[in-house]
Amino acid sequence: MASIERATATDIRLPYDQLHAFAGACLRAAGAREEDAVIVADVLLAADVRGIESHGIARLRRYVVGLQSGAINAAAKPKVIAETKVGARLDADNGLGQPVSLHAMQLSIQKAQECGIGIVGVCHTNHFGIAGYYAALAVERGMAGFATTNASPQVAPTHAAVAMYGTNPIAIALPTGGATPFLLDMATSAVPRGRLERMQWNSSPMPEGWAIEPGGRAASNIDRLLGGLRKEEGFALLPLGGFGEVWGGHKGYGLGLLVDLLCGPLAGAGWGRHVYGPNGANLGHWFAAIKIDDFIPIAQFQESACRMFDEIRSVPKIKGETRVYIPGEKEEEERRCRLEKGIRLATKVYTDLVKLGKDTGVKL
Amino acid sequence: MASIERATATDIRLPYDQLHAFAGACLRAAGAREEDAVIVADVLLAADVRGIESHGIARLRRYVVGLQSGAINAAAKPKVIAETKVGARLDADNGLGQPVSLHAMQLSIQKAQECGIGIVGVCHTNHFGIAGYYAALAVERGMAGFATTNASPQVAPTHAAVAMYGTNPIAIALPTGGATPFLLDMATSAVPRGRLERMQWNSSPMPEGWAIEPGGRAASNIDRLLGGLRKEEGFALLPLGGFGEVWGGHKGYGLGLLVDLLCGPLAGAGWGRHVYGPNGANLGHWFAAIKIDDFIPIAQFQESACRMFDEIRSVPKIKGETRVYIPGEKEEEERRCRLEKGIRLATKVYTDLVKLGKDTGVKL
Repeated sequence: MASIERATATDIRLPYDQLHAFAGACLRAAGAREEDAVIVADVLLAADVRGIESHGIARLRRYVVGLQSGAINAAAKPKVIAETKVGARLDADNGLGQPVSLHAMQLSIQKAQECGIGIVGVCHTNHFGIAGYYAALAVERGMAGFATTNASPQVAPTHAAVAMYGTNPIAIALPTGGATPFLLDMATSAVPRGRLERMQWNSSPMPEGWAIEPGGRAASNIDRLLGGLRKEEGFALLPLGGFGEVWGGHKGYGLGLLVDLLCGPLAGAGWGRHVYGPNGANLGHWFAAIKIDDFIPIAQFQESACRMFDEIRSVPKIKGETRVYIPGEKEEEERRCRLEKGIRLATKVYTDLVKLGKDTGVKL
Repeated sequence: MASIERATATDIRLPYDQLHAFAGACLRAAGAREEDAVIVADVLLAADVRGIESHGIARLRRYVVGLQSGAINAAAKPKVIAETKVGARLDADNGLGQPVSLHAMQLSIQKAQECGIGIVGVCHTNHFGIAGYYAALAVERGMAGFATTNASPQVAPTHAAVAMYGTNPIAIALPTGGATPFLLDMATSAVPRGRLERMQWNSSPMPEGWAIEPGGRAASNIDRLLGGLRKEEGFALLPLGGFGEVWGGHKGYGLGLLVDLLCGPLAGAGWGRHVYGPNGANLGHWFAAIKIDDFIPIAQFQESACRMFDEIRSVPKIKGETRVYIPGEKEEEERRCRLEKGIRLATKVYTDLVKLGKDTGVKL
């Protein structure tokens, strides 16, 4: 769900169009093709407007640096490795994750339009932004959408003392109709790294149960954790469900490992500690679309879903709470608000963007 | 994962064949068709041999009583409501959940054999046992398998004070080769009701963070919780991730609500508090199978998966732990042990089975 950290007085708001143009210009300056730069800017800004700021324009520098250093192939030509009527697997040629992912999701939708279901995997690719962006595309066509990716190793399996796989998100969207389409977009770790970054920007304290330090102790210092996660053995996030098996940490681990199996071995990409290893990122993604009407008339599905959501919303609340949310509802409300009022940037993010602009010769 | 509660001195072991024959005979005595009784016994005993005792023969009485009372239709004739080359939706005619689920999974596999993917939903059905039983069937055919179901309302959405949906399990199996196929079979609640029942049999204490009592307080008394769950407003299990949003409870809630959306509105069945409501169980299930070879040569997938599992197993462990498990590994080891040594029954379960035998005229 969207940020629960509140804006601070020093936050800055900028209009969507200005940030979109800036992101696109920086990417082009770093060597991205015109059409690829637009897609990456679309996906980054989609995160910002939904309040998932850690995956938004705050990450622009990573893509720019990746393109400049050649770690990401700006001239990538994705290839089809395998294809059937309902499925395909693509090699992204180590290009930007967003353009190949948009293509793979559109291919899934096209196959689902023709056959009812489409499933497309991608290997040899890079970070694709928020999974929910792709899953949501299916909803506009009356389909269920699915997207997942693996990521750099930052999560410790249950009983392990070392990070062995990524925060490996899963996104599922359903065309439930009404004002709020159902969109579940979740890291399979207890907390996504991005939330920690956001809390670091705001100097928020960190609850226990999210991560471990070397020796398996509970991590409590956010700066030391974020500093250690990529560089030092023994710092690791915990799976959804937390430490050990008592609160279901083995389930979160199971989900995270499942994503790594799908996006690594099944997509033909890297997995575990091979991701962002000596051979480059080599991430894997999967996308799927399913036509609702082939199973049940979509109007019937939507009528039931709306009744279900009404029932959920009108349930008695825990003391101190006033709402029960449908997955995706908070983000949709943020989106409407931010498109109107502008996109909020933490001071630290804004300062870094200004600097990035200077580095690439683009004015913010 | 399988039980972490240990056997007590008073537990009893009986051979698989004896229990299977007993279960089948009781079901036939209650009116089940010969072939249906065999399938239900297969699925129940599959839970017992994997150590998921709460979903095994301990539940036999519920099916027997359901058949005897007419709540479950012993003479059900499932119908096809919708069908394409890759998908179908069936109406189970309020029959036993296991036979229609086996049929639906086999139909998914058949469609995947022909087209690469098969997805089949079921409405108007009853409890189907362990989801993992069906997902695992795909693995024998070199396919990924998926099964899910909704269930009676026992879980409170994040911020809600009342149970609004079931423990809604998800099972995913992958043909990873080697001795241990990957099989993730998990309730989307922090803890499945069955684990609470098993702890009650063994008088184990209950950790906090699993459930709430009326008023939203943490539940700590297992007898009062299990007594209240179905009968009294305000007793509820918590989603995976626990109370509120801090540890990701909203993700577990998102997964549980997703299953309810799929198995309720999308399958054309009941959802939320309508499940086991005045109109009967009206559960929904979904099954899927995906042929690996259509995407990547299965030998390549299995070789990578085996390397991945070796890497996971050889990772440094948290102090006091000696193993990191692959999902499904504990259950597979239990299976081999129990098929050889016999199936362990808690005294309370054994006593109830003897009584059930007397009630139905079948000798244990």
